[in-house]
Amino acid sequence: TRGSPEFREPGSGGIFRLTGEAQFDFGYVENPGERVATTNLGYNGRARRIIIGAHGDLPGDFRYIIEFNLTGQAVDYEDVSLAWEPKGSPFSAKIGFHYPFVSLDILTSNKLISFSERAQINDALGQNGRRLGASFGLVDKSGTLRFNAGLFNSDINANFNNTNYLVSARGVWAPKALGGQLHLAANYQYRRFPVQSQGFLYQARPFAQISNVRFIGTAGASATGALSGGIAASGDQVFGVEAAGIFGPLHVVGEANYVKVDAIAPGEVLGNGRASTGQRLEGNPAFKAAYVEAGYWLTGETRGYARGRFDRTRVRNPVHKGGPGAFQLVGRVDHLDLTDRVGGTGAGIVNGVLNGGKQTGYLGGVNWWPTDNIRFSAQYTRAEIDGGPGAGQVEPLSPASLIDRDYGVDVFVTRAQFDF
Amino acid sequence: TRGSPEFREPGSGGIFRLTGEAQFDFGYVENPGERVATTNLGYNGRARRIIIGAHGDLPGDFRYIIEFNLTGQAVDYEDVSLAWEPKGSPFSAKIGFHYPFVSLDILTSNKLISFSERAQINDALGQNGRRLGASFGLVDKSGTLRFNAGLFNSDINANFNNTNYLVSARGVWAPKALGGQLHLAANYQYRRFPVQSQGFLYQARPFAQISNVRFIGTAGASATGALSGGIAASGDQVFGVEAAGIFGPLHVVGEANYVKVDAIAPGEVLGNGRASTGQRLEGNPAFKAAYVEAGYWLTGETRGYARGRFDRTRVRNPVHKGGPGAFQLVGRVDHLDLTDRVGGTGAGIVNGVLNGGKQTGYLGGVNWWPTDNIRFSAQYTRAEIDGGPGAGQVEPLSPASLIDRDYGVDVFVTRAQFDF
Amino acid sequence: TRGSPEFREPGSGGIFRLTGEAQFDFGYVENPGERVATTNLGYNGRARRIIIGAHGDLPGDFRYIIEFNLTGQAVDYEDVSLAWEPKGSPFSAKIGFHYPFVSLDILTSNKLISFSERAQINDALGQNGRRLGASFGLVDKSGTLRFNAGLFNSDINANFNNTNYLVSARGVWAPKALGGQLHLAANYQYRRFPVQSQGFLYQARPFAQISNVRFIGTAGASATGALSGGIAASGDQVFGVEAAGIFGPLHVVGEANYVKVDAIAPGEVLGNGRASTGQRLEGNPAFKAAYVEAGYWLTGETRGYARGRFDRTRVRNPVHKGGPGAFQLVGRVDHLDLTDRVGGTGAGIVNGVLNGGKQTGYLGGVNWWPTDNIRFSAQYTRAEIDGGPGAGQVEPLSPASLIDRDYGVDVFVTRAQFDF
Repeated sequence: TRGSPEFREPGSGGIFRLTGEAQFDFGYVENPGERVATTNLGYNGRARRIIIGAHGDLPGDFRYIIEFNLTGQAVDYEDVSLAWEPKGSPFSAKIGFHYPFVSLDILTSNKLISFSERAQINDALGQNGRRLGASFGLVDKSGTLRFNAGLFNSDINANFNNTNYLVSARGVWAPKALGGQLHLAANYQYRRFPVQSQGFLYQARPFAQISNVRFIGTAGASATGALSGGIAASGDQVFGVEAAGIFGPLHVVGEANYVKVDAIAPGEVLGNGRASTGQRLEGNPAFKAAYVEAGYWLTGETRGYARGRFDRTRVRNPVHKGGPGAFQLVGRVDHLDLTDRVGGTGAGIVNGVLNGGKQTGYLGGVNWWPTDNIRFSAQYTRAEIDGGPGAGQVEPLSPASLIDRDYGVDVFVTRAQFDF
Repeated sequence: TRGSPEFREPGSGGIFRLTGEAQFDFGYVENPGERVATTNLGYNGRARRIIIGAHGDLPGDFRYIIEFNLTGQAVDYEDVSLAWEPKGSPFSAKIGFHYPFVSLDILTSNKLISFSERAQINDALGQNGRRLGASFGLVDKSGTLRFNAGLFNSDINANFNNTNYLVSARGVWAPKALGGQLHLAANYQYRRFPVQSQGFLYQARPFAQISNVRFIGTAGASATGALSGGIAASGDQVFGVEAAGIFGPLHVVGEANYVKVDAIAPGEVLGNGRASTGQRLEGNPAFKAAYVEAGYWLTGETRGYARGRFDRTRVRNPVHKGGPGAFQLVGRVDHLDLTDRVGGTGAGIVNGVLNGGKQTGYLGGVNWWPTDNIRFSAQYTRAEIDGGPGAGQVEPLSPASLIDRDYGVDVFVTRAQFDF
Repeated sequence: TRGSPEFREPGSGGIFRLTGEAQFDFGYVENPGERVATTNLGYNGRARRIIIGAHGDLPGDFRYIIEFNLTGQAVDYEDVSLAWEPKGSPFSAKIGFHYPFVSLDILTSNKLISFSERAQINDALGQNGRRLGASFGLVDKSGTLRFNAGLFNSDINANFNNTNYLVSARGVWAPKALGGQLHLAANYQYRRFPVQSQGFLYQARPFAQISNVRFIGTAGASATGALSGGIAASGDQVFGVEAAGIFGPLHVVGEANYVKVDAIAPGEVLGNGRASTGQRLEGNPAFKAAYVEAGYWLTGETRGYARGRFDRTRVRNPVHKGGPGAFQLVGRVDHLDLTDRVGGTGAGIVNGVLNGGKQTGYLGGVNWWPTDNIRFSAQYTRAEIDGGPGAGQVEPLSPASLIDRDYGVDVFVTRAQFDF
């Protein structure tokens, strides 16, 4: 069963579907030692996403999608794109606002990820990541081998100077083997920032979007948890590997990313119309991230997988058939390291080391799907932070270097979700 | 007939409906003596609401709704919620963005209220009043007795410090008696403001939303009709009683509210992370409001009523069947008193009295519904104001105390509305 | 074939359709001599429109439409209106947000115009031009003669002082003659600006909306291409004539406009609550604009025409039937003259001449429609500018008067579009 009906036009083979989604979050992010000078930690409630849109097929093997996310009294976007997927051909193409080919966790729908938020590297690399661009795909007949690549410009905004761009590619090998579904993939992004504002603030929330405080990020010391400035860079490269397996009710998945920043040095002269933003660096920092996750359906479901990403899991015994719905236990360890030696001095640099900080999350949660389109989730996270822009504020008396001061934060998030 | 079709999914019993609405207002709010220093009085036109959304049923007795109000170049929301209404059970539950149980006038759809705006107490208590929260309902088999209660957080916003909350409850007794439909109800709200900004500005427009000028409100004197500041308070309690009757083409309805403010005193020390906003008060003020309304369908309709609130009235002889549509005459007297003795001095306080002002509206109007989904309305209101933040500006030469200076304002509003 | 299905309600004759559209632009606007101090010239990508909405019929010969354009992270509107179109009657009426009767190019859907943007006079007269208002139409039985007139207030905004208004009228004679479809029309607007801010900035982009730089406009000299201020005026009158012909695969069309400004003189005293904005002028300037356009369908289509404007062209051999889709070549010359003698001195005035500037565009493009609902376009424009607010910045060494300094700009725009 679907949450909304699908309409087929007689004669043309066209299909049309209205879609929507809402996610309501309520939770708690600890203010460590009550030392961060902000009201944006503690309890908070929020509508995380409120989505409405339409999907459809057009004659000629075209597919379109327009989806808006209108939460927070603001206009944002899910996919807004046109795809061409000729039947029987290994080739496909897409134009418009869609995700670069970057991470299994990103490419899996936000409705279907194991926790309320994706792995923190995706947060650190900047917002939701979709871009205006054009891409193509190749897939073998069995669907086991898959390759996508694209050239992307900017997000959907009101700017008239979107000179940034991004090239990305991803290859997937997804054999049915070992009695289950395997997934091995590699992805790559080459990103250039806008020429008139070359710089980026790599920063990650504490595994929840009910707070805007970041304990780690490539910025100068912050007493409030709000970071600003970032580092001067013309762009970066992001390398990722993905591995996953689905074996009956069990799934395991892990990804690792390596980010190589093309920093701009203190003395570097940029051309006409070009400028940098943020702290200039003597060396090129590199950042590392990895997570491993496992999930188990207590009620016997098998996690869905299709087209190189996780897909919807069908509930075996939904409540309207007298069943308990589907219960899933999930656990994850997620590590991000934004600290690296760059030499020199400046905002965020401690003894020649860019003190972006390291954050490791230990996440555990339970997801209950009474039916296919409704989900209730609860999750607890312990975030352990080493260094970072808040270390001096949170641990003011520690004799350790700012890079080594460590502290922990408890995070609790509940979510109610429906989609159609 | 509906304005939009309803889709039923074969096999699942699911129902899906697209909905929308637009309201166009044009009218006039008098600038008394041309003395208020603003351009926001006089003639003005406006799209009051432009709504689009979807409703649906999901298997398992779930119902969802997502509705956006996108007027004024801004994103706002009608209901965004998921309800569980098990068939044959007296119990139901709802989660998401919906109205606390607060007033018959609020719980009646904006499309179906008698005038262009609801009773002024609803404006004074803050915006449209919906909140993110969870609630439950109980109803007896005949639908005569009804009880709802809920716990609510904040509205849908981009804040990360929504520490406010609200508890509300409402009981309704709605027997068919005396040859018609009766309605007797009581409602209650316990509201706490965000701990980091404890305060509220109670203020009400002159019975129209085509101006943002307020002649009454708990703020200091204003020469422009724009109020700011408000009073320091940790929260308030709102008590309401409702009575209504529908007898053939006639309906009568009245509500009364009593608002008890938990003010914060000048010397009071708030805890860590807590702060007040607005004028601190030595005493706890109380505000009072009441309205009575009557309406009569000249064309013989009977005002709709269902589930503890007014519902859609079906047009007996719509224009597409050669009839005149439905004509309704409506009248209302609406009084709000934001003036109370609190002692002390400060912004908005005159001789120890918080000079919020009193406003009484005498409203008369005519509604024409050519068909079920189209409405044209015209209404005249005489607003009489005693005291309030604008009294000194409007009546500068009066020998009376600022609390007792009175003046009147003519208001005229026309509306065109359609919905589907 | 349509991009979305149409639903008919059994019994009522009601029709309902969901609609949507997306346009993705990428292109280049030359920075002449790299002299304009902005980052808003050069390459830029943008989602030009992302539209979602609904159309429908209601019993009683009413038709409604609600369409939002939610691009650029902002809420904007296409039509939001209710029409009454009694069958068999020459009369119709409309209320709500819709276009005044102003120009064939404006009244033709943005999906169906020949280039990515409309003729520059429409940009110069202010944004997209729709207004809240009421209008009526008359049409003869054959549809050959058509007259519309309306009274309009403001756009949809959050203001409470929309005292501006507009009266417009348009008559069309559209006979089938000379072996094709002819179109001859005249249109007129009488516009009054808000009484509290009487003034307007007439300005036009260089034939593309991928930059916000204006080389011409009634403002003082600008080094950055961002204009501000405008001229003081109580309103203006716009006179337009339209002529078009469709002969098989060929269409030709031209329009001319004359704008007479009711300027406010330096010494003029405005009444209570009234104020002017921008440069006051000693004389009333007049502006002139005209364009001519021709298009040819290489694949044999005939450009659609209906109800006094261009309509959708049906693709003869779409790709899903093995055809090439439809290819169209289009060319246009578009001239706008914002320079006029007004006497006196002040911002934007050079030797008694208001130096708004003249801009002529030579546009050529190709449009490919693989199917009825998908369009890919590429166009090149050479914009020639005489004088204007940027002339001193772009041509600093020229001995000519600022009014006569001329320069050119290359503009290239590509667009991908789908609609349903």
